[in-house]
Amino acid sequence: MKTLFQIGETKVIGEIATILKTRDPSVIAGIGDDAAVIRFGKKSLLFTTDALLEGIHFDWRFTTPNLLGRKILSVNLSDIAAMGGRPRWAVISLALPGRTPLRVLREFYRGLESQARAFGVQVVGGDTDHSAKGWKITLALLGESRRAVYRRGARAGDRLWVTGTLGDAALGLALLKKREIRTFSEKKFTKAHLDPIPRVNEGKALAEGNLATGLIDVSDGLLLDLERLLTASGVGARLDGDAVPWSPGFFEGCLSLRLDPLLLSLTGGEDYELLFTAPKHRTREIQRVFSRLKTRVTCLGEIMSRRGLEISGGGKKVLKFARKGYLHF
Amino acid sequence: MKTLFQIGETKVIGEIATILKTRDPSVIAGIGDDAAVIRFGKKSLLFTTDALLEGIHFDWRFTTPNLLGRKILSVNLSDIAAMGGRPRWAVISLALPGRTPLRVLREFYRGLESQARAFGVQVVGGDTDHSAKGWKITLALLGESRRAVYRRGARAGDRLWVTGTLGDAALGLALLKKREIRTFSEKKFTKAHLDPIPRVNEGKALAEGNLATGLIDVSDGLLLDLERLLTASGVGARLDGDAVPWSPGFFEGCLSLRLDPLLLSLTGGEDYELLFTAPKHRTREIQRVFSRLKTRVTCLGEIMSRRGLEISGGGKKVLKFARKGYLHF
Repeated sequence: MKTLFQIGETKVIGEIATILKTRDPSVIAGIGDDAAVIRFGKKSLLFTTDALLEGIHFDWRFTTPNLLGRKILSVNLSDIAAMGGRPRWAVISLALPGRTPLRVLREFYRGLESQARAFGVQVVGGDTDHSAKGWKITLALLGESRRAVYRRGARAGDRLWVTGTLGDAALGLALLKKREIRTFSEKKFTKAHLDPIPRVNEGKALAEGNLATGLIDVSDGLLLDLERLLTASGVGARLDGDAVPWSPGFFEGCLSLRLDPLLLSLTGGEDYELLFTAPKHRTREIQRVFSRLKTRVTCLGEIMSRRGLEISGGGKKVLKFARKGYLHF
Repeated sequence: MKTLFQIGETKVIGEIATILKTRDPSVIAGIGDDAAVIRFGKKSLLFTTDALLEGIHFDWRFTTPNLLGRKILSVNLSDIAAMGGRPRWAVISLALPGRTPLRVLREFYRGLESQARAFGVQVVGGDTDHSAKGWKITLALLGESRRAVYRRGARAGDRLWVTGTLGDAALGLALLKKREIRTFSEKKFTKAHLDPIPRVNEGKALAEGNLATGLIDVSDGLLLDLERLLTASGVGARLDGDAVPWSPGFFEGCLSLRLDPLLLSLTGGEDYELLFTAPKHRTREIQRVFSRLKTRVTCLGEIMSRRGLEISGGGKKVLKFARKGYLHF
């Protein structure tokens, strides 16, 4: 019998979804999107969970308890944003060594509370356990929505869009691992990794304006999350590698670490940007909405009826990548 | 600055509750009860989370993936039962070594699904991560309720009741740690530890019949959870140690391991029974309801206006215990 490593994350999730069959008619969407969608009264509930584990997702040499408190909420907020929802209530489960000073625990919860306040979330409960083997943080977040946007809605002819810039968090992590951070632009990249800004307002604007046909967050790398959106929608895409949005200083930062900037921005994880599709005739409206939100938005290419992904860039017709993003197994 | 071990769980939770202040008027009850209560439309949502960690809460020498899948839901179901609610939807976060065989993961999810089906719960999403350091399982459960029952409602003169029997799970764990399990009654005790039955139907009946004034589940030991109920209600109690309900064979099992049966049944953890208070004139009705549910229910004593806990038993007036139950720090 094969192990989870040998099978890979995509098939593992497929196996789980087969066992946990949806029987409840109140469940509009279960396993397989960024958050579950549940009909409850007149509105819909969005329900998601995400974890940060010491040694896997974070390293105490690079982060602080306060930033970690902010980030465990941010990664879950991004899932609600990816459904176009409004985040509301959270419960947190924290396992940490009993020898941890109270001051450290306080800093963690202050960070969590500051991000909760910024996004209108109330942390309503939790569970704290002793763990001899490092910190394990799990948060479950509830949101609400009048009109959720799913991965599965992309249609041939739609334009493919992404918010913000790509690769910053991956470059930030590489910078943290390599050396001391000195310049202003280096700090911007490490912040993208340590304290990402979830695109909650952008997701809500897309849902409320009925602008997006398909929507997902870029948490495991653009190519991998794009593939998930395309698979869910049963379509393909043409992606213009030259259009991939980079931060000022990103190119130079990559070169200084001998990293390929295109590879990093297409496959680096933890961007927490929104990737979405929209009909061509909504282009002006999208640009207007994002200009009002003061958030960069970039057209990356087009959705095609033929399955598969064509990537052009640097004058070449097709680029190939061995690794599309971050898989947990 | 003191560590969490030095401060103790009760004060740690107090510190967390101070930081995570409730600002949202939709939150009827936040940190400090078995589950949070949230107003959403015409009904209330109940929201809780609980974790099982390898090496802290379970040991692979004693349990199986299937039983563990059942138990992570059961411990959360008990929290919803302790509010008198109806459990509905869950998300699960699982961290486990990538070298785990797929078969083991399947067994875990099949166990989870079987218990979900038995209690009308739908698992709608989750998160699976690689963890080099053992299994970490966190589940968040949503329930609904028309009339939640809180810890804080016990009043002087009320009778104090408990469902089922106490100490079985603690004896079961002691048996597992000591030797092979051979007799039928030994298996009953180990089952109480490995595969507890949450009192969901009993909690719903208490809420629907408006029978209980105060309600909590006994997960960390009767004395500790009783103290929590009394503190939340601002009252005291007289507890009749001779009335504490024991399973057939419990006394003999304790003696064979040289364990004090009264101590074990008052302070042993993981009973997942319901402890509740009710006015004296509801006694007949309570007995009728539990007889219909085929669940044992026992009157343990009385609520007093004077704070503190008086325990009588074995002819003595007052019994004292150094340790009231299971604290995580």
